[in-house]
Amino acid sequence: MDFSPSSRAADLTAAVREFIATRIAPVESQIHADIARRRLAGEDSWAVDPRVTELQAAARAEGLWNLFLPAGHEGPYAERYGTRGGAGLTNSDYAPVAEEMGRSFLAPLVFNCNAPDTGNMEVLLKYGSAEQKDRWLDPLLAGEIRSAFLMTEPEVASSDASTMAATARISGDEVVLDGHKWWSTGVGHPDCRVGIFMGVTDPDAHRYLRHSMVLVPMDAPGVSVERMLTAQGMFDEPLGHGEVRLDGVRLPVSNIIAGPGRAAEIAQGRLGPGRVHHCMRLIGLAELALDLACRRASERVAFGKPIVNLGGNRERLAEARIAIDQARLLVHHAAWKLDTEGQAAVEVSAIKAAVPRMAQQVIDMAMQLHGGAGMSDDFPLAGAYATARALRLADGPDEVHLGVVARALLAPYRDAAAARTTAEESR
Amino acid sequence: MDFSPSSRAADLTAAVREFIATRIAPVESQIHADIARRRLAGEDSWAVDPRVTELQAAARAEGLWNLFLPAGHEGPYAERYGTRGGAGLTNSDYAPVAEEMGRSFLAPLVFNCNAPDTGNMEVLLKYGSAEQKDRWLDPLLAGEIRSAFLMTEPEVASSDASTMAATARISGDEVVLDGHKWWSTGVGHPDCRVGIFMGVTDPDAHRYLRHSMVLVPMDAPGVSVERMLTAQGMFDEPLGHGEVRLDGVRLPVSNIIAGPGRAAEIAQGRLGPGRVHHCMRLIGLAELALDLACRRASERVAFGKPIVNLGGNRERLAEARIAIDQARLLVHHAAWKLDTEGQAAVEVSAIKAAVPRMAQQVIDMAMQLHGGAGMSDDFPLAGAYATARALRLADGPDEVHLGVVARALLAPYRDAAAARTTAEESR
Amino acid sequence: MDFSPSSRAADLTAAVREFIATRIAPVESQIHADIARRRLAGEDSWAVDPRVTELQAAARAEGLWNLFLPAGHEGPYAERYGTRGGAGLTNSDYAPVAEEMGRSFLAPLVFNCNAPDTGNMEVLLKYGSAEQKDRWLDPLLAGEIRSAFLMTEPEVASSDASTMAATARISGDEVVLDGHKWWSTGVGHPDCRVGIFMGVTDPDAHRYLRHSMVLVPMDAPGVSVERMLTAQGMFDEPLGHGEVRLDGVRLPVSNIIAGPGRAAEIAQGRLGPGRVHHCMRLIGLAELALDLACRRASERVAFGKPIVNLGGNRERLAEARIAIDQARLLVHHAAWKLDTEGQAAVEVSAIKAAVPRMAQQVIDMAMQLHGGAGMSDDFPLAGAYATARALRLADGPDEVHLGVVARALLAPYRDAAAARTTAEESR
Amino acid sequence: MDFSPSSRAADLTAAVREFIATRIAPVESQIHADIARRRLAGEDSWAVDPRVTELQAAARAEGLWNLFLPAGHEGPYAERYGTRGGAGLTNSDYAPVAEEMGRSFLAPLVFNCNAPDTGNMEVLLKYGSAEQKDRWLDPLLAGEIRSAFLMTEPEVASSDASTMAATARISGDEVVLDGHKWWSTGVGHPDCRVGIFMGVTDPDAHRYLRHSMVLVPMDAPGVSVERMLTAQGMFDEPLGHGEVRLDGVRLPVSNIIAGPGRAAEIAQGRLGPGRVHHCMRLIGLAELALDLACRRASERVAFGKPIVNLGGNRERLAEARIAIDQARLLVHHAAWKLDTEGQAAVEVSAIKAAVPRMAQQVIDMAMQLHGGAGMSDDFPLAGAYATARALRLADGPDEVHLGVVARALLAPYRDAAAARTTAEESR
Repeated sequence: MDFSPSSRAADLTAAVREFIATRIAPVESQIHADIARRRLAGEDSWAVDPRVTELQAAARAEGLWNLFLPAGHEGPYAERYGTRGGAGLTNSDYAPVAEEMGRSFLAPLVFNCNAPDTGNMEVLLKYGSAEQKDRWLDPLLAGEIRSAFLMTEPEVASSDASTMAATARISGDEVVLDGHKWWSTGVGHPDCRVGIFMGVTDPDAHRYLRHSMVLVPMDAPGVSVERMLTAQGMFDEPLGHGEVRLDGVRLPVSNIIAGPGRAAEIAQGRLGPGRVHHCMRLIGLAELALDLACRRASERVAFGKPIVNLGGNRERLAEARIAIDQARLLVHHAAWKLDTEGQAAVEVSAIKAAVPRMAQQVIDMAMQLHGGAGMSDDFPLAGAYATARALRLADGPDEVHLGVVARALLAPYRDAAAARTTAEESR
Repeated sequence: MDFSPSSRAADLTAAVREFIATRIAPVESQIHADIARRRLAGEDSWAVDPRVTELQAAARAEGLWNLFLPAGHEGPYAERYGTRGGAGLTNSDYAPVAEEMGRSFLAPLVFNCNAPDTGNMEVLLKYGSAEQKDRWLDPLLAGEIRSAFLMTEPEVASSDASTMAATARISGDEVVLDGHKWWSTGVGHPDCRVGIFMGVTDPDAHRYLRHSMVLVPMDAPGVSVERMLTAQGMFDEPLGHGEVRLDGVRLPVSNIIAGPGRAAEIAQGRLGPGRVHHCMRLIGLAELALDLACRRASERVAFGKPIVNLGGNRERLAEARIAIDQARLLVHHAAWKLDTEGQAAVEVSAIKAAVPRMAQQVIDMAMQLHGGAGMSDDFPLAGAYATARALRLADGPDEVHLGVVARALLAPYRDAAAARTTAEESR
Repeated sequence: MDFSPSSRAADLTAAVREFIATRIAPVESQIHADIARRRLAGEDSWAVDPRVTELQAAARAEGLWNLFLPAGHEGPYAERYGTRGGAGLTNSDYAPVAEEMGRSFLAPLVFNCNAPDTGNMEVLLKYGSAEQKDRWLDPLLAGEIRSAFLMTEPEVASSDASTMAATARISGDEVVLDGHKWWSTGVGHPDCRVGIFMGVTDPDAHRYLRHSMVLVPMDAPGVSVERMLTAQGMFDEPLGHGEVRLDGVRLPVSNIIAGPGRAAEIAQGRLGPGRVHHCMRLIGLAELALDLACRRASERVAFGKPIVNLGGNRERLAEARIAIDQARLLVHHAAWKLDTEGQAAVEVSAIKAAVPRMAQQVIDMAMQLHGGAGMSDDFPLAGAYATARALRLADGPDEVHLGVVARALLAPYRDAAAARTTAEESR
Repeated sequence: MDFSPSSRAADLTAAVREFIATRIAPVESQIHADIARRRLAGEDSWAVDPRVTELQAAARAEGLWNLFLPAGHEGPYAERYGTRGGAGLTNSDYAPVAEEMGRSFLAPLVFNCNAPDTGNMEVLLKYGSAEQKDRWLDPLLAGEIRSAFLMTEPEVASSDASTMAATARISGDEVVLDGHKWWSTGVGHPDCRVGIFMGVTDPDAHRYLRHSMVLVPMDAPGVSVERMLTAQGMFDEPLGHGEVRLDGVRLPVSNIIAGPGRAAEIAQGRLGPGRVHHCMRLIGLAELALDLACRRASERVAFGKPIVNLGGNRERLAEARIAIDQARLLVHHAAWKLDTEGQAAVEVSAIKAAVPRMAQQVIDMAMQLHGGAGMSDDFPLAGAYATARALRLADGPDEVHLGVVARALLAPYRDAAAARTTAEESR
């Protein structure tokens, strides 16, 4: 057993931390304030902030770019767009790096490591045709365009893909998309040029072979972003979450990724790393909240003492310290299992169930210690809270992931019980 | 023991429910949507919506007006502005009525029963001079103006009033106000004409005799609303929460309520009923969330069944049912104690600690059952959540109220322990 | 609304409290210690303690006897054996009386108000034939004999009565009992003379008409108490919980209560009040634990202060205060509903799910504040804990009761959803 | 990062698992039943069971003996008594081995790895004189005698060592022990020959230099075991927990370990590894409970399905799976930090606060799924529960350990706040 990061991970973590502290932090709250100001003034709160563009250029220049790119997929892309040192990171190595990024709302975007672009890039890297890569992956890796993932639908329970209503019908050499999607993260960004749309191609096929994933230019006729959604009052600019309608959108069949009927397979591969990344970043977000809570509670005085010394506050902070540490270890373990065994679906479900909830609780505690200030925009806590809360639903609700954990846990017992029953019956 | 409401309470509860169902509900979501639209279009989201004004007139015409007015203070006010039947309600009678109002964000304002106006009216009713009543209480009872309460300050821990920095200095026949306040609910409303300001008059007096409450016209020179605050992303129009600066505001000493140094006494009286009303409404809000959760979970289907039948969902709903019922009974008991014994400080702290937290949990559960929709503005859950969350801080954080409960619980043991120690020492 | 007890309830509560304080408390811990000493010395720990017999006589002489007897069933029994004043109490009136009894392990037995005898007496009162009453009810009411209830079975999930394996077959004018029962409370007592046995009479009947209840003399041939069980290490003398085997026990059919096939109906009636009584007593038990916790935490000193002032201890005590108060109100409300509407199955399930768990948590907190002493036999906390823990299983596990609450809560939504679906399909 | 055990740890874990499965498990429940039978028959339930002695001999013969002996202390002891391969294990290596042992109540004793002997042996190894080692360490390592640790006192809060009342006064070349101790684990065993007693030698010294540790032969004049204590009804034979009185016990000063005044230093060193070992074993105990829960819930049927498929049961099992995995990782991390940095006081406090509570909850859940059986002696759950519960108090209550975590977490903030205050004041 060895809990220390590799030297490469340690170096990159330090570099990212330094970059955030010296480059992003000094401007971040001002950028958010400007977005809020524009929003309330009826101006375009989605317009690209030039400071972000500059930060992206600086990050890329320092090689702190596309660090999410997984080991094993370096190829020409890592060379061209790749991370410091030119090669992909293991999940274990990426974990502390992503955690650092999680302490800032802007950092993931600045380092070209933000959802949903990372997941979309991984899909293209792994399943995309050469043509698809040239057209979409190259500019995504370069940070020139952004992307969205169009899966969730308002009318059905998204946790059960078999209920999906959107269609991607083949008609000659075209595929025709119809559907109503929402929580399509990223469509608010002016550079969002492409979405990966998921819909039913063959309703009569096996449930894992029904759906296709199709690359949709956001300006294709029939695609309309109907509105941007708030999540607990937050628009989450500059990416945002949109409601999108696709009405008879006709595209060449070559826009289907990996061919018709392979969406379920791709989705599994896509969502796994994405969930791990979310959890890594949430650890950082929870650390940020705990840091703010400790600071506030040590400085603010009531009844003659720092409030940290009142009632159960020290215990609450200690509980948060323990909860974050446990969650981080579980995330690191899942990442290590992904690295060493190639898959870790159950472990990923476990962290997806455990980490957002933990983060929500830690942030809630931090808000409480801040008093009213914690709920205001003067601190990043309300935003952090909405992020953690949303991730108890996004990419599968807690309950679905607990179900995955339970199924794996219980499989041997079920088999044993079945064997026993059979034996008894045959007597 | 008798848990049934009085016939008057039952009648008024039914009337309020009917009014909400037939008059408010049909327009409420549209009113909120219009506010949001105006806000994002850079228009004035705080402007009075004529539909609200109409609803207020209708409510007043039906006698569903000022129902918060407590028994024992009817006098000329109840006659002139009073409630159906012309007399104040006991707290026990008001409880189910206020619970109904709590199921709608607009209802309290429509029935002239919203915080902070109710608390301010009670202060004027009980402590105001004839002149103060004429000038401010009459139009408040008529719903012609609105008011604010200026107590909380950004730089200090508001749970400890002895840290308050704002001043209300006597200078000849004037009182001079200086201070920096925030979370001043109601200042966003265009009709907000007066605030009750709390500041230090004599820093050397006993800690309960230091502060004064002063009626401040919001248009007095030196008063400026610096910004409206968001609570978890919500502006809470049409009342809102503001940050207010008072800079050398000079007013006649006759604007002091009940004379200098009496703020602590008034605050105790003011906050008690206010906290009870908040809790009553939160019961209604939690019921709303549970209602939505039951409906959604019964209708939405996943994996071949209504999601209510998946995993632990039924248990979660049952737990919420029990939690709300327990909380309601605790609120009713506190109200009854207030009615029968005249005060119930410990019981009020108990409900203030227990009820917002309960509501927060129930609403969170309801959000989870709604999936992403629950976090959006399509359902009232995100707003409900922010309301419940804020009330774990407003009017004293959970921890302070638990402290009050603990002090009362432990007093006899402390005295006994002290007596034993004395006896041992004197041996 | 009126939360005050009736004067009769107040008087009886005071009398019971006084009796416990002056008569039972002075000897209770010695009686328990003697039982433990006998048990470890290989002597009979189940022998009747003459001090208990004396206390019973005194309680009966003071009319503090059979107070559980419900209003409406006074008849000759209340006259002969009845409670002070000669008439049964409502559930509301009995609630505070039973709570007092719950603070002592011996009190229920001393006042002839202990489970399972009370439930068995109610069954005989309501469903027993004159002959059955003469033979069993009279001596039970007089406290001359004790009884048991033989329902739970080791091999099946007792929460689902349809799995019951024991049989009560009619054979001519005899009924033949076979079965293996456990957790038969009361069979450890030397005066336990009769059990109410539940078994399948007609496996082909409707599931609510399959079972019969049969009065079994404990000395009938074929009845054997195989062992006494421990619950978390406790034998719970002097009543105890036994494992009982019935092997071809032949009895006259007149021993069947109310005729064959009526067990389900009787069980519903029997278990309702029994569950309410358990909850009433658990409120008292939780109060005892909180009382001990407050005392210990106020007296014991560490790091220079009473431990009540360390960390989150005051908050924990306040939380316990609130939790008990909420639970008590829920119990009182259920009792009141039973009184006014004749039944309250859902409310009873709600308290059965909520109250034992609450008590378990409060007692656990009290143990923690006592340090190691709390787990020892020097304090009643370990015993209290086992009692509360057992009641999360006895008379239906938490989960089953939550299911009852959920079913009632969701019924209208299910019907509405069904109606909508039908309407849609018929379009 | 590498989460895989060393090959040595993997081998030993497998060997211990195999030994438990094939040698201990087949007789364990019978041994416990015999103890219980003897106890209730008034026979000596503390007598050594020859089957345990045989198992110890077999374990020693296989080198599965003294595996707790830490790396770095092999010296002659590891050679003479040592573990398979002859060298001590790192904490990381011992972790999975100890976890296996934790699944059986007897295993730690069988492998000579049980508390408090392991801690006492470590003290002697590290601080003992040659003479002390010859007399006590050799036979302890050989398993020929057993030992106790006499620290906790009934009259004071043991979490604050400065309140300790027992004394170890120097009188010429003797040390005189007086004191009243309890929860002295191990004194029930007939082979318990020596205790390590802690008492005040110089009340005026610095608080860390006041106490001494003294080796006390249990048969020294003045030593009396007054009674064996139950913890939640359990005597925990064959070691047990005793109440011990020392009344003017005179011993040579050479019985003091490492010289007068060094008890605090030794205690810190002694309790750290002991706490880690407890946590390692509790992981195993929680795994045992989860294993039983999964089995029971998969086999027992109610309402037509295995109860695992009812309500929230699957979620509860998944939550337990996640909670154990998180806790194990935290324990492994603390062990690794102990190995790599030599000390990990804060990490040890974190696991001591988190792990027993986790185990208590998992076991409670498992009990609930077992119904009444779970509380009986037919399953090891009631015993497991008492063990986990006791460890929320033994070796420092949860709250004290949370305090240690909080102090470390908050230190930098406190210093920063102090610096800021100083800077402000000096302006």
